[in-house]
Amino acid sequence: MKVVLSDNQYGKAETRVVRVVRSSDGDAIQDMNVSIALAGDFDSAHLSGDNSNIVPTDTQKNTVFAFAGDSAPGEIEDFGLRLARHFVKEFASVYRARVSVEEYSWSRLDAHDFVRQGGEKRLAMVTCTDDAEWVVGGLSDLVVLKTSGSEFHGYIKDRYTTLEETSDRILATSVVARWRYSVTSAQWKTLHEDIRRLLLDTFAATHSLSLQQTLFAMGEAVLQAKREVAEIRMSMPNKHHFAVDLSPFGTANRNEVFFAADRPYGLIEGAVTRDDAPDAGFAW
Amino acid sequence: MKVVLSDNQYGKAETRVVRVVRSSDGDAIQDMNVSIALAGDFDSAHLSGDNSNIVPTDTQKNTVFAFAGDSAPGEIEDFGLRLARHFVKEFASVYRARVSVEEYSWSRLDAHDFVRQGGEKRLAMVTCTDDAEWVVGGLSDLVVLKTSGSEFHGYIKDRYTTLEETSDRILATSVVARWRYSVTSAQWKTLHEDIRRLLLDTFAATHSLSLQQTLFAMGEAVLQAKREVAEIRMSMPNKHHFAVDLSPFGTANRNEVFFAADRPYGLIEGAVTRDDAPDAGFAW
Amino acid sequence: MKVVLSDNQYGKAETRVVRVVRSSDGDAIQDMNVSIALAGDFDSAHLSGDNSNIVPTDTQKNTVFAFAGDSAPGEIEDFGLRLARHFVKEFASVYRARVSVEEYSWSRLDAHDFVRQGGEKRLAMVTCTDDAEWVVGGLSDLVVLKTSGSEFHGYIKDRYTTLEETSDRILATSVVARWRYSVTSAQWKTLHEDIRRLLLDTFAATHSLSLQQTLFAMGEAVLQAKREVAEIRMSMPNKHHFAVDLSPFGTANRNEVFFAADRPYGLIEGAVTRDDAPDAGFAW
Amino acid sequence: MKVVLSDNQYGKAETRVVRVVRSSDGDAIQDMNVSIALAGDFDSAHLSGDNSNIVPTDTQKNTVFAFAGDSAPGEIEDFGLRLARHFVKEFASVYRARVSVEEYSWSRLDAHDFVRQGGEKRLAMVTCTDDAEWVVGGLSDLVVLKTSGSEFHGYIKDRYTTLEETSDRILATSVVARWRYSVTSAQWKTLHEDIRRLLLDTFAATHSLSLQQTLFAMGEAVLQAKREVAEIRMSMPNKHHFAVDLSPFGTANRNEVFFAADRPYGLIEGAVTRDDAPDAGFAW
Repeated sequence: MKVVLSDNQYGKAETRVVRVVRSSDGDAIQDMNVSIALAGDFDSAHLSGDNSNIVPTDTQKNTVFAFAGDSAPGEIEDFGLRLARHFVKEFASVYRARVSVEEYSWSRLDAHDFVRQGGEKRLAMVTCTDDAEWVVGGLSDLVVLKTSGSEFHGYIKDRYTTLEETSDRILATSVVARWRYSVTSAQWKTLHEDIRRLLLDTFAATHSLSLQQTLFAMGEAVLQAKREVAEIRMSMPNKHHFAVDLSPFGTANRNEVFFAADRPYGLIEGAVTRDDAPDAGFAW
Repeated sequence: MKVVLSDNQYGKAETRVVRVVRSSDGDAIQDMNVSIALAGDFDSAHLSGDNSNIVPTDTQKNTVFAFAGDSAPGEIEDFGLRLARHFVKEFASVYRARVSVEEYSWSRLDAHDFVRQGGEKRLAMVTCTDDAEWVVGGLSDLVVLKTSGSEFHGYIKDRYTTLEETSDRILATSVVARWRYSVTSAQWKTLHEDIRRLLLDTFAATHSLSLQQTLFAMGEAVLQAKREVAEIRMSMPNKHHFAVDLSPFGTANRNEVFFAADRPYGLIEGAVTRDDAPDAGFAW
Repeated sequence: MKVVLSDNQYGKAETRVVRVVRSSDGDAIQDMNVSIALAGDFDSAHLSGDNSNIVPTDTQKNTVFAFAGDSAPGEIEDFGLRLARHFVKEFASVYRARVSVEEYSWSRLDAHDFVRQGGEKRLAMVTCTDDAEWVVGGLSDLVVLKTSGSEFHGYIKDRYTTLEETSDRILATSVVARWRYSVTSAQWKTLHEDIRRLLLDTFAATHSLSLQQTLFAMGEAVLQAKREVAEIRMSMPNKHHFAVDLSPFGTANRNEVFFAADRPYGLIEGAVTRDDAPDAGFAW
Repeated sequence: MKVVLSDNQYGKAETRVVRVVRSSDGDAIQDMNVSIALAGDFDSAHLSGDNSNIVPTDTQKNTVFAFAGDSAPGEIEDFGLRLARHFVKEFASVYRARVSVEEYSWSRLDAHDFVRQGGEKRLAMVTCTDDAEWVVGGLSDLVVLKTSGSEFHGYIKDRYTTLEETSDRILATSVVARWRYSVTSAQWKTLHEDIRRLLLDTFAATHSLSLQQTLFAMGEAVLQAKREVAEIRMSMPNKHHFAVDLSPFGTANRNEVFFAADRPYGLIEGAVTRDDAPDAGFAW
């Protein structure tokens, strides 16, 4: 028996870079959280502490800042591509570079003043090897709720079942969606906005018999409308809103008063793909 | 020497109630986090475990749900007043009731579907005693940033000073503001929106020589425009954005690339009042 | 009517300094989070952006690091005193300096290796003016639980009461305690350890009829044993552990299976003092 | 082109169950956070909202509580196995059940009183299919630090490198380790304690030339000592402690004063395996 090193990667996580793009028409800001993970020939660092193949994570951080300064970063998918390509091209020991970017959005108040918009984040995850590239777009913390048009019944009952079937419940979730593009060059911003809109509209339009059904419908809508998307993966917690029993207080709860619970929560995860999607490779 | 009980209060914190107001024109939702604190004659509970003067926190929670069900809760200031008045009127042992409400806002997508808006919260803190009432409005997590129009110089230098003076820095903060009303009945929603707008506009319009100056200007604008406000208290962290030194990489940083630091941060706290404001009493 | 500046303070919050004290017997580490708040004559900064009375928060941070380097910081109460005294003595515009320190504890594995101990924190809050000084010690995140010896009954019932009385419930809380010393020089470490032990032992030894009773007993024990303590303030959430109804599954719950709820929670706050305690002044 | 459902799973996440095991010698408590994820034949729920193959997440939660009540849960690996086996055996539509348990540890003060120990968690992740089973043990939030015996040099330099080589730096990390057992029945508690001790001791004993080297050494030590472990995966953030430049204040920093930074941080991830390890299957 021998003990061996298996999959490994390393990099600088969560470099918080804010880029101001100044212009006579007023400024723009790009507020990003950039994480890098490199895989490659790092055996000697693990086995003997020989760092001759290692690009320090401090250098990775510097590279993020330097690239942000060279020119306007542009869309996070493109900024990720520039960074990931740099690491695989520049360093023989790096076989695969993955750059994950979270972007926070701001609204402009005037030429130089901004207010941050909510908790929703735009995501990009770019992976490059010496011979291939993948771009994954996404969003997180998109919190949505239906006050009507959600049912849940017809499920398996066993000796541990106490849940009542319902034809009218609140459905709420905080969507994390990541979609794999089959292209590496596109109008990312427009695509992102369109996909976000498709997700929202489909959530709203779907009369839901289960959160699974809603998830699939949302993914399907994106894939049918956007041929650049090969696959979409979603993670959707069922943020339970329990109708409070008001009968002890002499009141009926006409589906109006709910307790928003923290834990536990249902967690629904699923991927929706094209049957002719290109192989995912190292995209995820 | 004798050991004695001094100030004390207790209550149910963070009851998460979501109220749906249904209508043929489409629903509305009110998403609240309600915390209650009661003060009064609770010595016997502390000294001997005699709970005969205690309203259980579980009952307080029930009361929140029941009141939310009786009728539409209305503005959080009014909902707080209804609850706080109930506790002081109903229970002889309760001398003072404070109800704090955080409200999360949602945008309507259609008649029954909603998307949550950001991280900003609307706040109300209502305090009632047997003979007086106070309403404090507020907001938190209002994150704003100036890309220009912020200087900082002319400060004290000593042997520990290394900060360079600047006539052009990024200024960013996450505003928590609470304002004490001198009235207990008003168009709360309009007032809240107007005050929020005054805070934002003043932050943007103020050429800042220090965050203290900006804070005072924001408070002053509110007090000058809204006679219903007696006092405003603000807490504003200086969310440092440090210009990154790009010179080692052969690039100049033309005030464009910033590192957004987490800790430490400056913390600026201040109150702005009318000189003829009524006494604050138990408002805070 | 005139708009005026009222109470205000500012400072650098959460400077995370780790001090290694090296010795041939093995190292020690002191891991601290230091927050400073200065009050004084800062009107001109607020009213006109004139910073000539302002000690920059950046300088405050530097001072923390410099003082940590001068010599071993010692107990956090003493380190806080050194810092607070510095600010009031050195700067005419500073009337009051408050230094709050959180300390994280580590266990030594060998001469140079350490493992962090839990989530509990030791706290000190030191306040100095030109003519007086106050030291407040404390701890937070001390999470304790009784599986037996806790009752709750005899409370007020009204139309919103549904809670069943119980003579055997789980009692759990996360203690935050802060105690005001009547001295500014002492064996802080020993006092802290003794007080922590008194809090723990009293929680355990008290047959609880209410969390209020437990809180008072804990405070009383500290004040009776430690004449250096003038007052103790405690905040104790009632971390509810609800017995799960297992009867639908054909099992009885013999007070063995509990759901640990997140929100809402009861929150019990109280102060216990000596009747002859010196005035608290600016201690809090 | 057809849009199809791909990988999917669902379940109840974060059921917080506390089990008291009562005994005349004093009680024991088991404090767990249990998450379940089921995979199987759930196409109809996704495609048409037909829930006839769905075990509601509410039932899963009930099952956790019921099983916790049947008998003492025992080690979390065994409790996970009981639950996971139940779901695959009981429901034809469930092909794979994964049960993840976090356990928080408590120290006993006396027969009925406990104090929670720190932030470190014990982890188990059990996966069962109709024909195979996997047990993964683990721990998280084990925070360790070396004040000496850590170097970092010999790395690649490029135009973005500014980091100075060092032969004496602080090394700190918060270990997350998960190890795959090749057995499904064992003395889990003893194994866990031994593995934890090996991780700690190896961290301490390793003179570190890079965090990668330390990670590998820790994994190797576990695999060499414990034949029941087939593979170990570790994620170790480099929690940077930067030596503060005290020279502007006329003091030298003799490697004693450090700034503990939050972000960015290095993130080192790696797996160490036996070359003859059985296939991982669905273990992860």
